Amino acid sequence: MRYDKNWKSLYFPDFSPFERLDPERGIMLMSADMFAPDGDFPQEVKDAIHRAVDDDLLHYPSGRVQADFEAAVAQKLADFNQIRLDENTRLLTVPGSAFGLFLSIRVLVDPNRDSEVINFTPTFAENMNDVTMMGAKNVFCPLSAENGYQIEVEQLERCVTANTRCIVLTHPANPIGTVYPRETLEKLADMLRRRDLFVVVDQVFERSVYDGREYTTFASLPGMAERTLTVFGPSKELRLSGLRIGYVVGPAELIDKMRVAANNYVGLPNPLSMVACAEAYRHLEYTEQWRRILENRRNKAQKILDAIPNVSCPLPPAGFSFWLDVSRLGSSDEIVAYLVEHAQVGVGPGHWFGINCDGYLRVMFACYKDDETVYEACRRIAAALKKFQGLA
Amino acid sequence: MRYDKNWKSLYFPDFSPFERLDPERGIMLMSADMFAPDGDFPQEVKDAIHRAVDDDLLHYPSGRVQADFEAAVAQKLADFNQIRLDENTRLLTVPGSAFGLFLSIRVLVDPNRDSEVINFTPTFAENMNDVTMMGAKNVFCPLSAENGYQIEVEQLERCVTANTRCIVLTHPANPIGTVYPRETLEKLADMLRRRDLFVVVDQVFERSVYDGREYTTFASLPGMAERTLTVFGPSKELRLSGLRIGYVVGPAELIDKMRVAANNYVGLPNPLSMVACAEAYRHLEYTEQWRRILENRRNKAQKILDAIPNVSCPLPPAGFSFWLDVSRLGSSDEIVAYLVEHAQVGVGPGHWFGINCDGYLRVMFACYKDDETVYEACRRIAAALKKFQGLA
Repeated sequence: MRYDKNWKSLYFPDFSPFERLDPERGIMLMSADMFAPDGDFPQEVKDAIHRAVDDDLLHYPSGRVQADFEAAVAQKLADFNQIRLDENTRLLTVPGSAFGLFLSIRVLVDPNRDSEVINFTPTFAENMNDVTMMGAKNVFCPLSAENGYQIEVEQLERCVTANTRCIVLTHPANPIGTVYPRETLEKLADMLRRRDLFVVVDQVFERSVYDGREYTTFASLPGMAERTLTVFGPSKELRLSGLRIGYVVGPAELIDKMRVAANNYVGLPNPLSMVACAEAYRHLEYTEQWRRILENRRNKAQKILDAIPNVSCPLPPAGFSFWLDVSRLGSSDEIVAYLVEHAQVGVGPGHWFGINCDGYLRVMFACYKDDETVYEACRRIAAALKKFQGLA
Repeated sequence: MRYDKNWKSLYFPDFSPFERLDPERGIMLMSADMFAPDGDFPQEVKDAIHRAVDDDLLHYPSGRVQADFEAAVAQKLADFNQIRLDENTRLLTVPGSAFGLFLSIRVLVDPNRDSEVINFTPTFAENMNDVTMMGAKNVFCPLSAENGYQIEVEQLERCVTANTRCIVLTHPANPIGTVYPRETLEKLADMLRRRDLFVVVDQVFERSVYDGREYTTFASLPGMAERTLTVFGPSKELRLSGLRIGYVVGPAELIDKMRVAANNYVGLPNPLSMVACAEAYRHLEYTEQWRRILENRRNKAQKILDAIPNVSCPLPPAGFSFWLDVSRLGSSDEIVAYLVEHAQVGVGPGHWFGINCDGYLRVMFACYKDDETVYEACRRIAAALKKFQGLA
């Protein structure tokens, strides 16, 4: 059969180990969909969807739906990101941030012409697959636990070649939650200018930052609006993952090209998703409420996991997940299989997130509405990993 | 600025001529979104969305939402397409048929490695852009008015080279509405077998077939399920264009690869769109009702347009649009501009649809709920084109 051979090397998570979880007792700490599988969405957002359905807004989005959405987004960008939309800096709405990320990387590379894209690892598996699928080359810049997974710009610059077309930065970092200090980002900005490079910044976790940390939107640094494509995912901040809506902000020249591609690939956005998103931006009190729930949950759950002998669980500065170091116990796959069997808990093996990530586990703590379910899962993980070591 | 140079040659419709339409009097015969911009969607579908919102089905689709959607689709495929889903033939749900078309072509080519994709012209502009953007080469097989835009398999076979990776067939043809007789499709099937080729069939207009014509699903022909990726767009048959949902059916090996890509690019489908689509499949009485409205409207509107001196407007056997031959009057752009100015009507210039299509206009007749608006637009077109020729 003739198909693109690049796809042979794609990374696709193997979910088969989790089929052995008991339907009653099993707990999956896996979803990036906040509080999934539990419901309880803001009534204001649900009412907005009801109204849109009653108003027959089921066609391609009308001018009114688009204008309302864009006004809400422009306000948010001004308030939270210090980004102003104007003739040089434009907005593209996409069905989910993953698609925005793909289009952003895609516009910057030439497929199968030696284009290179730099990804920090650990990273989000999709970022690597996107590059592979479009016929470009992944270049990895490994971050290290020793310095808290901070970026070393000198190390990054050593990854740059004449073929480098962009750097992908997830900020806060996915899955490890690093928040980068302004000085690091300024140093990165200097390097981009010096080497005439673009950056694609995935900011889907920008509102899930803990401990009062300052968060800097990279594109708001002087001169960076013209070198940055920023991908936003209201799915996380507004809890609309299921409704598949996201947007990209960047230089007009690139956004206009991406818009042609978006029109071709997916057409206009879903009007119900636009309406829900615009309404959710008018009720950011929920976002702050959820952030506080997650921060509190993170604090308590981390204590349970970090107390496991020979396991280390740093407090993530942001995001939805722990990055658990189990390397002294065994490989990721070995521990994942053991936890399914002995704790009835599903977590993601480190190698889903790139090279030199074996021996780690991604443990999502944003799943389920009820804190107690997550604590129960963590207690089971702790008990099982003690048993694994013959300590219980 | 460094970006993929392939994008320079992308075909992007220029909508600026239509900005001169009067907001009050102007009529756009352009949208493929049935009855847009008017509302009036089936209450059953609207109720299903209301229920899903009340039930908090706003996360990534649950197993129940997916199972219900897949059961409705499987039933439709069995009843209407004589296609059975099984271990060899699988289903992939996508956010709109355009994305399904892209993924289907994409899985079959190697970007920038001389892969060729054959498109019949006139065709849907997206089909050509998809090929360009993925770094493959468009090969055009022009259909001709003389034989009613039927496929000549001998002519098609002369387009095949060692680099041909697939043939794209829109059936009924978009924008010209041709329905291919079973014998033609069987001849095409023979050729595919003989040359070991794949076909991607876009069937979004499969339910908008007029005059009691028989419609054959290509993949249902003996041996073709394994050589065909069929793209379905319930947006047209169920009038859910705005909700962005479609699906692809094909050989398990290819569908599984496309699923990896779909997960990367767009994640899981929107649950509200899945729920709406499943419910709409339980009320196909609307589909038949709309088909009859369009058939009747086509019959009357065609008489108005075909009566214009020196203009020819064949009755389209299927679909939402007329393919008006104005070549004896002038270029597409010239006539489009004249109609904006003198008829206050917007129609698509032929060159949007590929090579050797200048001198044609695509006139959508599926727009607006009210037949009379479309007849009024056609009468204005007729009056303006007589005036253009000094005949009125």
